[in-house]
Amino acid sequence: MATQPAAKIGESWQDIDTPALVVDLDHLEHNLATMADYARQQGVRLRPHSKSHKCPAIAHQQIALGAVGVCCQKVSEAEVMVAHGILDILVSNQIIGRAKLNRLAALAKQAEIAVCVDNIDNIDEINDAAERFNVSIKVLVEVNVGSARCGVLPGQETLILAKAIAECEHLHFAGLQAYHGGAQHLRSFEARRRTILQAANLVEETVSLLAEHGFHCDIIGGGGTGTYIFEATSGIYNELQVGSYVFMDQDYSLNLNAQGEPIDEFKQSLSIKSAVLSKPQSHRCVLDAGLKAFSTDSGLPGIARYEHTKVLGAADEHTNIEFSKHTQVPEIGDAVTLLPSHCDPTVNLHDWLIGIRKGQVQTIWPVAARGALL
Amino acid sequence: MATQPAAKIGESWQDIDTPALVVDLDHLEHNLATMADYARQQGVRLRPHSKSHKCPAIAHQQIALGAVGVCCQKVSEAEVMVAHGILDILVSNQIIGRAKLNRLAALAKQAEIAVCVDNIDNIDEINDAAERFNVSIKVLVEVNVGSARCGVLPGQETLILAKAIAECEHLHFAGLQAYHGGAQHLRSFEARRRTILQAANLVEETVSLLAEHGFHCDIIGGGGTGTYIFEATSGIYNELQVGSYVFMDQDYSLNLNAQGEPIDEFKQSLSIKSAVLSKPQSHRCVLDAGLKAFSTDSGLPGIARYEHTKVLGAADEHTNIEFSKHTQVPEIGDAVTLLPSHCDPTVNLHDWLIGIRKGQVQTIWPVAARGALL
Repeated sequence: MATQPAAKIGESWQDIDTPALVVDLDHLEHNLATMADYARQQGVRLRPHSKSHKCPAIAHQQIALGAVGVCCQKVSEAEVMVAHGILDILVSNQIIGRAKLNRLAALAKQAEIAVCVDNIDNIDEINDAAERFNVSIKVLVEVNVGSARCGVLPGQETLILAKAIAECEHLHFAGLQAYHGGAQHLRSFEARRRTILQAANLVEETVSLLAEHGFHCDIIGGGGTGTYIFEATSGIYNELQVGSYVFMDQDYSLNLNAQGEPIDEFKQSLSIKSAVLSKPQSHRCVLDAGLKAFSTDSGLPGIARYEHTKVLGAADEHTNIEFSKHTQVPEIGDAVTLLPSHCDPTVNLHDWLIGIRKGQVQTIWPVAARGALL
Repeated sequence: MATQPAAKIGESWQDIDTPALVVDLDHLEHNLATMADYARQQGVRLRPHSKSHKCPAIAHQQIALGAVGVCCQKVSEAEVMVAHGILDILVSNQIIGRAKLNRLAALAKQAEIAVCVDNIDNIDEINDAAERFNVSIKVLVEVNVGSARCGVLPGQETLILAKAIAECEHLHFAGLQAYHGGAQHLRSFEARRRTILQAANLVEETVSLLAEHGFHCDIIGGGGTGTYIFEATSGIYNELQVGSYVFMDQDYSLNLNAQGEPIDEFKQSLSIKSAVLSKPQSHRCVLDAGLKAFSTDSGLPGIARYEHTKVLGAADEHTNIEFSKHTQVPEIGDAVTLLPSHCDPTVNLHDWLIGIRKGQVQTIWPVAARGALL
């Protein structure tokens, strides 16, 4: 890590230099406990996605609260987790090519490793790698349940891959990956419920077909922060892969619950502390955080505590904000808290995550898997 | 650096694991030489912006070709450059607060350091830091020449700050920062020319006013890759701060030259090598690179070599692409080259920059100032 953290343990929030990625530990722990309790009550396993936080310290907290392990999206991400003592990992993605599969198989020497497939040639390739390292790798078939990204069709196509996996000496058919990414940010509760119900029906038919052919699905995985209650109560999914609930993207505040209110069971825990570096006009300020401190793929970040602000533009290292004439405008050097619209790619911009509790810096966690792209 | 590079020196382009940030060294060197030659011919100094590449190896090449030093946007970025032997740096930004100003002043013990101001209180704060470290810091007044981001107004407002700087024992008034960010991506040649002409007129009036009061501007800096010819030939700007020309954002291909053709004096040198990890339908592929491998603030990346493709969506680690029925579609594992729409925030996602020449890996440069946010 070439960079230095923006704070020291024991300093106050006011002392944190800017821009910096900050997590409210009370809110984080509330979120971790809420999801863990819910999964336990519903009798489904919890395997949170570590691509959101990329932080072994948080992964260990999730496991301490009952998670069976974590998901990773990349082999290199899984390597970081294993190197920090996380020993049960589902790579919820396709892993292609000898270089990455050697790394995956090497991990299976040290940890329980599962991976997803949606292509028959890839199955042979994984088996070859497992053979080279003399390990057994669990393999899930990724099923396209409506998101139209990766995955084979439910039913026969899935069965063909399950059979191919079962025929491989070093592979073990472990179930289905049935995540519906497209449903997570549908705004209406009913739209999300219906979409996951349809997905669950496809999964159920496929699980039955597989059972008829003697294949048992140990893992039937899916669910994101927008839809987890539907997967958990579907009667068919048995493992939740939720990620964003730890931090809560600002964008999720637009998702509505059954009463038509914004969903509120999780608290926004992540923020970017920035500061005003220029105040060229009485109601216009330029912040010291820009496109290198937050992602904008889901829109500009929210601005905490100041109402009726208008973001005029975000550049590499600046955000240009017009404040309402009816609110107090910050001065040069004053802190302005930004709320990331999309936490996952925002966290991936930072080397350090500064944990605060009641205004004091209590932890500084390296974002150890930041930049783990391979 | 927690991550490993995606290639080894001597391997072929085909061997580079994916996703990876790749630079074509012939194109890079063409760009470096073209800009250096142009600045020399026009009799203006070149101080390229290192926020684009964050890579000391490239900064040293720029200096070897005649650049007087580099610009940085952050103190922590300047620290990385100084630590790697770059000894003349303009921080082309406001630096606020004791913590950062101590770091800035400490750098002035080791290198020539200049910084920008647009606020009178900040001048005192910089002087105090310089006094604590017993150093002299050069200070430029940032002038708002039309971009309406940071900067004071030309004329009297600028004069007031120049006087305040000159009164500080440890500061040296060094000139004007007059960058026009908003002009860089205006599409028409004439619009860019006119905008910089207006900016140059404001700068010229201000320089005259300062001269009347005995203030000499050693540096009159500005210019970006979209407009540098106008600043260079303005007769008033004397230092170019161009950054993107080293790589060329895909977005710059929409800028037109005087003949109404896309600007072409620089070659796109930066790409992301990705690979197909899923091919769920005959004309739809999912790549292994997404929002953590490229920025989307200036749009989705271009796709090299395949025509009439349609990007259906980019997620954290995936890009979903529909290929034309009339082109050959890549297979699983095949490489697909992405052309970043905006290079600066894209480079900032990667720990390593893999340099290739004629298809062979010749260098692997750490993106040493990646994540330098403070």
